[in-house]
Amino acid sequence: MNFDKIIDRRGTHSVKWDSMNRLYGVSPDTGISMWVADMDFSSPDCVQAALAKMVEHGTYGYYGEDGSYRDAVCWWMANRHGWQVDPSHIFTTHGLVNGTALCLDAFTQPGDGVVLFTPIYHAFARVIGAAGRRVVECQMQNNDGRYALDFDAWDAQMDGSEKMLILCSPHNPGGRVWTQQELEGVAAFAKRHDLVLVSDEIHNDLVFGGHKHIPMAKILGCEDRQVMMTAASKTFNLAGAHTGNVIIADDALRARFAARMAGLGIGPNSFGLNMVEAAYSPEGAAWVDALVAYIDGNRAVFDAGVNAIPGLHSMALESTYLAWVDFAGTGMEREEFTRRVTETAQIAANYGPTFGKGGESFMRFNLGAPRSVIEDAVARLQNAFGDLQ
Amino acid sequence: MNFDKIIDRRGTHSVKWDSMNRLYGVSPDTGISMWVADMDFSSPDCVQAALAKMVEHGTYGYYGEDGSYRDAVCWWMANRHGWQVDPSHIFTTHGLVNGTALCLDAFTQPGDGVVLFTPIYHAFARVIGAAGRRVVECQMQNNDGRYALDFDAWDAQMDGSEKMLILCSPHNPGGRVWTQQELEGVAAFAKRHDLVLVSDEIHNDLVFGGHKHIPMAKILGCEDRQVMMTAASKTFNLAGAHTGNVIIADDALRARFAARMAGLGIGPNSFGLNMVEAAYSPEGAAWVDALVAYIDGNRAVFDAGVNAIPGLHSMALESTYLAWVDFAGTGMEREEFTRRVTETAQIAANYGPTFGKGGESFMRFNLGAPRSVIEDAVARLQNAFGDLQ
Ligand SMILES: Cc1ncc(COP(=O)(O)O)c(C=O)c1O
Ligand SMILES: Cc1ncc(COP(=O)(O)O)c(C=O)c1O
Repeated sequence: MNFDKIIDRRGTHSVKWDSMNRLYGVSPDTGISMWVADMDFSSPDCVQAALAKMVEHGTYGYYGEDGSYRDAVCWWMANRHGWQVDPSHIFTTHGLVNGTALCLDAFTQPGDGVVLFTPIYHAFARVIGAAGRRVVECQMQNNDGRYALDFDAWDAQMDGSEKMLILCSPHNPGGRVWTQQELEGVAAFAKRHDLVLVSDEIHNDLVFGGHKHIPMAKILGCEDRQVMMTAASKTFNLAGAHTGNVIIADDALRARFAARMAGLGIGPNSFGLNMVEAAYSPEGAAWVDALVAYIDGNRAVFDAGVNAIPGLHSMALESTYLAWVDFAGTGMEREEFTRRVTETAQIAANYGPTFGKGGESFMRFNLGAPRSVIEDAVARLQNAFGDLQ
Repeated sequence: MNFDKIIDRRGTHSVKWDSMNRLYGVSPDTGISMWVADMDFSSPDCVQAALAKMVEHGTYGYYGEDGSYRDAVCWWMANRHGWQVDPSHIFTTHGLVNGTALCLDAFTQPGDGVVLFTPIYHAFARVIGAAGRRVVECQMQNNDGRYALDFDAWDAQMDGSEKMLILCSPHNPGGRVWTQQELEGVAAFAKRHDLVLVSDEIHNDLVFGGHKHIPMAKILGCEDRQVMMTAASKTFNLAGAHTGNVIIADDALRARFAARMAGLGIGPNSFGLNMVEAAYSPEGAAWVDALVAYIDGNRAVFDAGVNAIPGLHSMALESTYLAWVDFAGTGMEREEFTRRVTETAQIAANYGPTFGKGGESFMRFNLGAPRSVIEDAVARLQNAFGDLQ
């Protein structure tokens, strides 16, 4: 577990590094990539061993019985999240963007409204739009740099055409770990407006001290409308394997989802299955504990450095490695602070408006990198906004 | 390229070996698995090297620019099949069952008829049914052990509710390599009945001497209704990676397909992309030439041995490693010859009826295995049907 090690990902088809120039105009030779949510770390040894075993065997035919994979998922959810999953409730999709799309396909019709608490992970809106459904943006309150749910305002916003709510729990960006009370509020809101409640918990393992992720599956009162989504891809840096789990306890919803899985010919790949099974293990758990501690350290360095710049504010993350920095206090136009980040600091970071309403004055910075890179980024930002000191 | 080497696939999640007992009642300890279409061979060194490089790098984040992957696909199709593919026409799906399902989703409506020339690869009917479309079985003529297309009969069968034709080219099972004239007949048939023509060419590389695979894309007169499907998975034994290509030259069809790819959040995994790119290379081509020669040898051994049994007839394969054996001549009930194959010979082989009309008296045997295994299988069959000698 040497998270300090610099791994050169250039020229490996990494979207984060090899597409940063095209997408952000930041050269990978001089710049730092802090956009898309994967980490510049190697996966743990247990995952490497599983892959090495596949390569040693050298034969890559059809994967069959996935009982041990399902057991590993159940073991992880029980041990790390206190959540008992029935293995027969698990569908393995091609990652969770695909999982989200399959939920839209199974549970909504073209034109239906799909509620998002914004700002939120941008791909939700993209896939909702691409599927011909309608994004219903419910903007969160930003209470002194901490997001809050605003059910009263959102109740007034609903017009009955909404059929689904996609919750991001923990929340990307902003890093909120929703409390029991907040999750109960979400469940009641979904019930009040008769929404299927899809809870995307891809960041569930990356939670910092003092906070506790509660799976939506443990919240009472929404069992009949609830779809859980989890994956090992953020936790163990396996996003390239495109493997995620959609877990549905309700019989009627599960049958509808199963029908679409079959009708769309969705089946998981052997690499993802073997890697995830290896990751969801005691060895994987120990690695995650070390990872979370390391990212917590990155977060401390980043926040201290960025918050020292007048007018910049990095939200206090309770979860995720995705720092969410508000530039509103600078009084600058969006073009200006974006230019300073990309051109002056030479940092590729996600643009806030892509996350929906409330994201306008923000940029998102990926902290899943060696400490020295985070320190470099802080120095670059302090320099780029040095006139504000 | 040591195709003679016995690779023990038991306990590796191989569906072929680890599910044979559950599905066919044949124990992997005493039996031979000859059902599902993957091979008991290692992939070529170029593929192993690509994977080893990934493992050595050890970081499995999002895959980005796929230009070199697309170039490799285009290079292969041009060099091996004389077919010029525009790289921007390629969609990479999660294998071709998923590709088929996406075609159904993009180009047909629930209830629409989808034409299959039977007997044919069983998953087509499964996914057509699961998608709520209707299978229209057009049975091929069996002319002395060689399949022929029967357009006159099929013209009479059409009632206007058919919207798509899925062609298997080369054909699984039966191993036909369709001639130019036959393909022109298919194109004219599709045009006559206004069908989208999906040509599944997954077996395009496994063609024996004297025959030449002609991509449907090179047939004139159906450009506006044509969808090509190819993959490296059969050729290089990469089925576990779930990576296939749907290639669409027509702008209108391509736009509709692109919309469903986006709406369903379909994106390929990094393992499949890296393996296929490595496979579609001069080194991969040399391996395929050796493979085809080896399978040709297997086919000679198998056919000689099986055809020596009175009442059994193995179709003369022009392509594929999937032998198609007719037991009609034995005069036995299906239960009886099936019992002899599975229980007496202890061979797991696909049941003919799953391939649709015309498959009733057949079983399919996978010849993608070391020569000694094929010889063993022949001996077992000769023994199981010894009373017919
Ligand atoms: C909340 C959330 N869901 C899903 C994803 C992506 O999932 P996948 O890579 O499995 O499609 C991300 C990636 O950042 C995410 O933050
Ligand atoms: C004609 C044909 N198409 C598709 C497939 C399966 O494709 P995939 O594994 O890419 O889903 C097979 C496998 O046997 C096949 O024979």
